[in-house]
Amino acid sequence: MTRSWWGWGDTEDALAPDESAALAARVAAFLPDHDFTDHAPPAPASLPVPRPRLEPPGALARLCSTDPVDRLSHARGKAFRDVVRNLSGQVEAVPDLVVRPESEQDVVDVLDWCSAAGTPVIPYGGGSSVVGGVEPRFAGPSVSLDLGRLGQVLEIDRTSRAARVQAGVYGPALEDQLRPHGLTLRHYPQSFTHSTLGGWLATRAGGHFATLATHIDDLTEAIRVVTPIGVSESRRLPGSGAGPSPDRMFLGSEGTLGVITEAWIRLQERPVWQAKASVTFPKYADAVNATRAIAQSGLYPSNCRLLDAAEAFLNAGVSADGLLLLAFESADHPVDAWLDRAVELTADHGGTVTARRGESGSAWRSAFLRMPYQRDALARRSMVVETFETACTWDAFPGFHAAVTAAATAAIAEICGAGVVTCRFTHVYPDGPAPYYGIYATGRWGSTLAQWDEVKAAVSEAIWANGGTITHHHAVGRDHRPWYDRQRPDPFAAALSAAKDALDPAGVLNPGVLIR
Amino acid sequence: MTRSWWGWGDTEDALAPDESAALAARVAAFLPDHDFTDHAPPAPASLPVPRPRLEPPGALARLCSTDPVDRLSHARGKAFRDVVRNLSGQVEAVPDLVVRPESEQDVVDVLDWCSAAGTPVIPYGGGSSVVGGVEPRFAGPSVSLDLGRLGQVLEIDRTSRAARVQAGVYGPALEDQLRPHGLTLRHYPQSFTHSTLGGWLATRAGGHFATLATHIDDLTEAIRVVTPIGVSESRRLPGSGAGPSPDRMFLGSEGTLGVITEAWIRLQERPVWQAKASVTFPKYADAVNATRAIAQSGLYPSNCRLLDAAEAFLNAGVSADGLLLLAFESADHPVDAWLDRAVELTADHGGTVTARRGESGSAWRSAFLRMPYQRDALARRSMVVETFETACTWDAFPGFHAAVTAAATAAIAEICGAGVVTCRFTHVYPDGPAPYYGIYATGRWGSTLAQWDEVKAAVSEAIWANGGTITHHHAVGRDHRPWYDRQRPDPFAAALSAAKDALDPAGVLNPGVLIR
Repeated sequence: MTRSWWGWGDTEDALAPDESAALAARVAAFLPDHDFTDHAPPAPASLPVPRPRLEPPGALARLCSTDPVDRLSHARGKAFRDVVRNLSGQVEAVPDLVVRPESEQDVVDVLDWCSAAGTPVIPYGGGSSVVGGVEPRFAGPSVSLDLGRLGQVLEIDRTSRAARVQAGVYGPALEDQLRPHGLTLRHYPQSFTHSTLGGWLATRAGGHFATLATHIDDLTEAIRVVTPIGVSESRRLPGSGAGPSPDRMFLGSEGTLGVITEAWIRLQERPVWQAKASVTFPKYADAVNATRAIAQSGLYPSNCRLLDAAEAFLNAGVSADGLLLLAFESADHPVDAWLDRAVELTADHGGTVTARRGESGSAWRSAFLRMPYQRDALARRSMVVETFETACTWDAFPGFHAAVTAAATAAIAEICGAGVVTCRFTHVYPDGPAPYYGIYATGRWGSTLAQWDEVKAAVSEAIWANGGTITHHHAVGRDHRPWYDRQRPDPFAAALSAAKDALDPAGVLNPGVLIR
Repeated sequence: MTRSWWGWGDTEDALAPDESAALAARVAAFLPDHDFTDHAPPAPASLPVPRPRLEPPGALARLCSTDPVDRLSHARGKAFRDVVRNLSGQVEAVPDLVVRPESEQDVVDVLDWCSAAGTPVIPYGGGSSVVGGVEPRFAGPSVSLDLGRLGQVLEIDRTSRAARVQAGVYGPALEDQLRPHGLTLRHYPQSFTHSTLGGWLATRAGGHFATLATHIDDLTEAIRVVTPIGVSESRRLPGSGAGPSPDRMFLGSEGTLGVITEAWIRLQERPVWQAKASVTFPKYADAVNATRAIAQSGLYPSNCRLLDAAEAFLNAGVSADGLLLLAFESADHPVDAWLDRAVELTADHGGTVTARRGESGSAWRSAFLRMPYQRDALARRSMVVETFETACTWDAFPGFHAAVTAAATAAIAEICGAGVVTCRFTHVYPDGPAPYYGIYATGRWGSTLAQWDEVKAAVSEAIWANGGTITHHHAVGRDHRPWYDRQRPDPFAAALSAAKDALDPAGVLNPGVLIR
């Protein structure tokens, strides 16, 4: 497989021309005036990638790549704004070196070198950031530290259902190594195929489970991190109350406090029993209340994904004001009783089961992993296509949702002209949902980046003003900084900043992200 | 009710003389050579409490108490080593003032005054620390900041099942204020009646639920903290991925980073359905494996408390090598199917149900809340009676348990002469249990403090050497420092220390606890 330098995933998995055309035709049904001309990406070798300004020490040279396309593909993440800039051949800052450590000592040596030289170093997992997390958005030279060669499961504790794993492992390779042991992490962010364990930990990625272990945080037993002042390794503990959790400081640190090299992760048995249902609602507000009832029931579905009318139509071909995809799974016991009760709760709120044990759930999940490829195909056709996500309390949700949707709709109307806003819940908690919004709007070729940035600013303001979080699981990176800076408490920022200074005295770790 | 200055809880609830004698007679059955003479506590007014060395600013005088007995009762927590020192009339450092703020602004003013004067200030909730967390273990003057007058539920969000609550509220007062709304926190540490929400948050207290929300951490939606550099308030969010969690930095900070004044907490509906079973096992190893199977089943019992033979006999009057107390509860649905499956799992490992829906579980729970009073009665009779708790992985547990039990048994034999070690699991996780050990040993009046300190050092070494945590839910305080300092990663300690310097530049917050 060939990794795409400009867009999502592997080039072999991108939409074929006929698939792309068919998708464009479907979208044209609701954006009839849009110009769907397909703009192919430039040849990367034709782009003006600046020459590297860094010379690695001899001992590290074997790990370093100066190849222009390699460096170009490490210059950005995979957000819409990254893809659009790549498609238009817009070259900005590019890391001077891509360094691929083969051992933890290599990571130590790279940090030592970069700290001594004052060279920014950007930890890089799968490069799937959608928030500018891996982009050297500054003038000087930089190193992209690609952990991809540290991809082994090192140890398995079958009894405690845990494994010690190198941070550079990609999702599929991790599952391949766990499968012979009958175990699985079951952490499936949309980036699963092209993101790494270390990336998940550094960004507090959201995964498979709609309830309980929603973030990788909860599946983390211990973390090993190389910081410029030494290696930090927490104990393997199922639970502890010994001071503030060391792991919780590194979870979400986005490469600013150290480089995660290993973790002990909590695993699952492979599920044997599953039960699924699709439930439609004539009124969205009722669907929300039904979802809340389930989230507060103590039933803990593995999937509890509420699609609004636009999501239901676009992604499941269903006409309803709300479509709730429910699933329970277990390696221990049949879960029909659990689903029965959840379905009763939906009926209490006007829901109708349209499929049980059907394929709608898994079909939707395959589509879920394909969505970034569709996004790329539409980006090539001048559309503004992107997502943003948040979380808020149930009490706040109706007003929050109305405000965010209104801001998005107004921004689309003003900036793009035409488009739709969709919403689904990716995760739900007893005290609130994590809504995930999609934007599909018409754009003008050459302007879609600026158009999206304007829409994004408008919706981020609405999220902030209405009490949401600027990110539930996409991380902060560089793109969310203006709103994150207002969201986090100032004393906490002072504490985090001081912690960073202590761990990274030279200030070389991922500058511009989170703090500094 | 009259708060005991020297021992646990209220004097009216202490064991009556005949209860104490009956308890001594029961214990004498296995410690026949012990001298059970009852030593009454001294009259507090007779003790040489030093005169206060601090004069509060006029504006704060209305909040300050210099009463010797008030100060004496704030000088220590409620561990065995505190009770023994009180019983023997041993006066050491005593806070010079007890300050009881009536508003958050009062807290700000106290911290301003103490920071300017360089006076250590010890945040005080219910004073139930068992790790030296509220004790001014240093020579200079100090202030005990008692939050007990900030005890109101300020706001309830019925939809999201959450409440904004002042940190000084005691357990029963909190539940009293929630009950009219049909809601409950259901967080019942053993200290429930005499500890506060702020104390639970600051120490990551463990509560009612044996699985899932084991610590108060998981029931925390947002925290408001007064730090010397300003007020830190996190947003109410059901989940977030915006950088390292601000709440997780203050959870477990034990008064070293700021004074928690309010929190939004996640509530439960009052349970309507319950199902309970008591299961005995002829072999402890089988009982452990059954408990592990349940912890990994995804059934999530609210109670899953495994008592070893000594615990079962002493606390439930049951002769068995293992006694598992199981309970499920729900406000939404009958939970018999859950219990049925859990019982099947115990049968797979040789368990026998001895009671179902019986009273053994709730009888044990009432006894649970009475245990500290019994501890005090036995401390008066020269016994060494204390608990310690930890957590480790399932894989490690057999070796860990053998090592810790051997260390405890050897220490008792050498230092005390005779005694027993008991073990129960208070909480269980998919990757490991939280074992809670009890020591009941013979002591010599006047030496029991030194005897316990020696036993504690021996078991703490064993916990550390065998991979456990020095505390699962009792916190670090001053007593656990030598082992905590070895347990936490050095780079994390450097980061936490820097964070403290940023938040508490004068270094006045609870010196000696956790760091510094």
